[in-house]
Amino acid sequence: MPPELFSPTVQHTLDLVGIFVFAISGALLAVRKNFDVFGMAVLAEVTALGGGLFRDVVIGAVPPAAFTDLGYFLTPLFATLVVFFLHPHVERIQRAVYVFDAAGLGLFCVSGTTKAYAYGLNLTASATLGLATAVGGGVLRDVLANEVPSLLRWDRDLYAVPAIVGATMVALCIDQDVLSPLTSGLAALTAFVLRLLAMRYHWRAPRAWNRRSTVREE
Amino acid sequence: MPPELFSPTVQHTLDLVGIFVFAISGALLAVRKNFDVFGMAVLAEVTALGGGLFRDVVIGAVPPAAFTDLGYFLTPLFATLVVFFLHPHVERIQRAVYVFDAAGLGLFCVSGTTKAYAYGLNLTASATLGLATAVGGGVLRDVLANEVPSLLRWDRDLYAVPAIVGATMVALCIDQDVLSPLTSGLAALTAFVLRLLAMRYHWRAPRAWNRRSTVREE
Amino acid sequence: MPPELFSPTVQHTLDLVGIFVFAISGALLAVRKNFDVFGMAVLAEVTALGGGLFRDVVIGAVPPAAFTDLGYFLTPLFATLVVFFLHPHVERIQRAVYVFDAAGLGLFCVSGTTKAYAYGLNLTASATLGLATAVGGGVLRDVLANEVPSLLRWDRDLYAVPAIVGATMVALCIDQDVLSPLTSGLAALTAFVLRLLAMRYHWRAPRAWNRRSTVREE
Repeated sequence: MPPELFSPTVQHTLDLVGIFVFAISGALLAVRKNFDVFGMAVLAEVTALGGGLFRDVVIGAVPPAAFTDLGYFLTPLFATLVVFFLHPHVERIQRAVYVFDAAGLGLFCVSGTTKAYAYGLNLTASATLGLATAVGGGVLRDVLANEVPSLLRWDRDLYAVPAIVGATMVALCIDQDVLSPLTSGLAALTAFVLRLLAMRYHWRAPRAWNRRSTVREE
Repeated sequence: MPPELFSPTVQHTLDLVGIFVFAISGALLAVRKNFDVFGMAVLAEVTALGGGLFRDVVIGAVPPAAFTDLGYFLTPLFATLVVFFLHPHVERIQRAVYVFDAAGLGLFCVSGTTKAYAYGLNLTASATLGLATAVGGGVLRDVLANEVPSLLRWDRDLYAVPAIVGATMVALCIDQDVLSPLTSGLAALTAFVLRLLAMRYHWRAPRAWNRRSTVREE
Repeated sequence: MPPELFSPTVQHTLDLVGIFVFAISGALLAVRKNFDVFGMAVLAEVTALGGGLFRDVVIGAVPPAAFTDLGYFLTPLFATLVVFFLHPHVERIQRAVYVFDAAGLGLFCVSGTTKAYAYGLNLTASATLGLATAVGGGVLRDVLANEVPSLLRWDRDLYAVPAIVGATMVALCIDQDVLSPLTSGLAALTAFVLRLLAMRYHWRAPRAWNRRSTVREE
């Protein structure tokens, strides 16, 4: 099994931070969609835990961590309460939420890749599951809210690419046998900074070449 | 393993009743969405078995009961036939369908919680999976039909809360070591009655405080 | 374990062909929805591998083949590149894509049924999972793209029925102990030809009887 990114306590705290910020984004979307408080809680839980749940089911780590760690389950409920009572204030600090979300993206793509490899998957599959861990919750959130997943939309700043880079860095470190808290942290930091830069400079990915002019712009 | 809610035969019959009424709601939505008979069958199967399928995959009970019990599989097909041929009549007795659906909700939140605990999950996780068993099929139904899940909408009568209460009662009974057919039945009955009352008096859950007036009402 | 449909190499090649054509359909929908290149890759992967992933999770074959076979993972990326650079040309040969998609449908309903039975499921469940393997990826594709799954729509040519017929033929062959490369191939061919005929003659499935005239036509 590869080394822990950090000491178990630090790792767990970082996981909870990532879960919290992802849950905030789910609860905020629920408010925007006019859902009630239970809808907020469901979207918060799904956004925060959905990616890891998918990873754990795929690698056979059942019951998934989302259902065995009480902190993982309660953190999104706490995020729901925060948004429920402080919604306008949370919206006002949307920029801060995005920064934390970027941090969650970086942490989850690294921990997801590491865990998948620890369960015996090959490097490519591990990196893919690291990506799925990082972005899966957001996709489920958007599907449940009946929106086109923002991950897929061309008019959103790059989100998958930073996670792909972070997950690939971890896979390369494993391949070269240099995975350590330092290199893992560097991978998470790279994904984090890339996402911040993508938001700052509105980096977009290209769409298919030679799309005919009749394609409807959305 | 906790005791059966009822004798195996009675329990199985109750399961099939719950599956049947959930399947009816799926097939009816398919008719409203103008799907063909295969779409009706798919929505009926997904609505009836989706919640339990999710639970079984999460707790590692594979292959899930939905695929090992022929009765579980055939009941939604029978419900599809009923709706196919008697659609206007089924719509007319919509009120009765809702009552049966409430019964299914009560039964599934209890049996889901019990089964999850039997597979070694902690009490909180068991109750959460009980809730997921009861409401998961309906969420999948709405996602496949490309609708906002009615579970999440604030303008629908309380649906999750009765299931949460029932699942929590079961978890408390397990914790106090008083789970028996009697207490299990009481939990299912409580969820059932709460759901009926929620429909009768149009109980709604609150939305976030201080939503700005610019939020679009849907 | 039932016999292989063909020699392992031939079977693997056929799988990759099926994955490729399903991926093409996912990438094309992504272009139509105006997604960027990463959205195209996600839809291509999901369409090509989603059905088999669902089957493997349900039968407990984890990690699923989608994550252990590098060719399964890379083929949809190759399909994405093809659509990215040659999109108008691929659209022009849409008819050919449909023919290949029909071939994928035939192959996947047979291989899905066979694999599910090999993992101990009964014949009905195996055929159902064969169907799910064949059509599941397309349903996930449409859900992620926020469209009503074309599988469920009455105004689309029959898609599930050919797969049901093919999967049922395999189940009957297993039951009669006559499953062989020949009979398997015959089942795949039957599903393939039925799908081609359904497209050629616009076979549709009926909707519920006596739908009231107030039902909105979509």
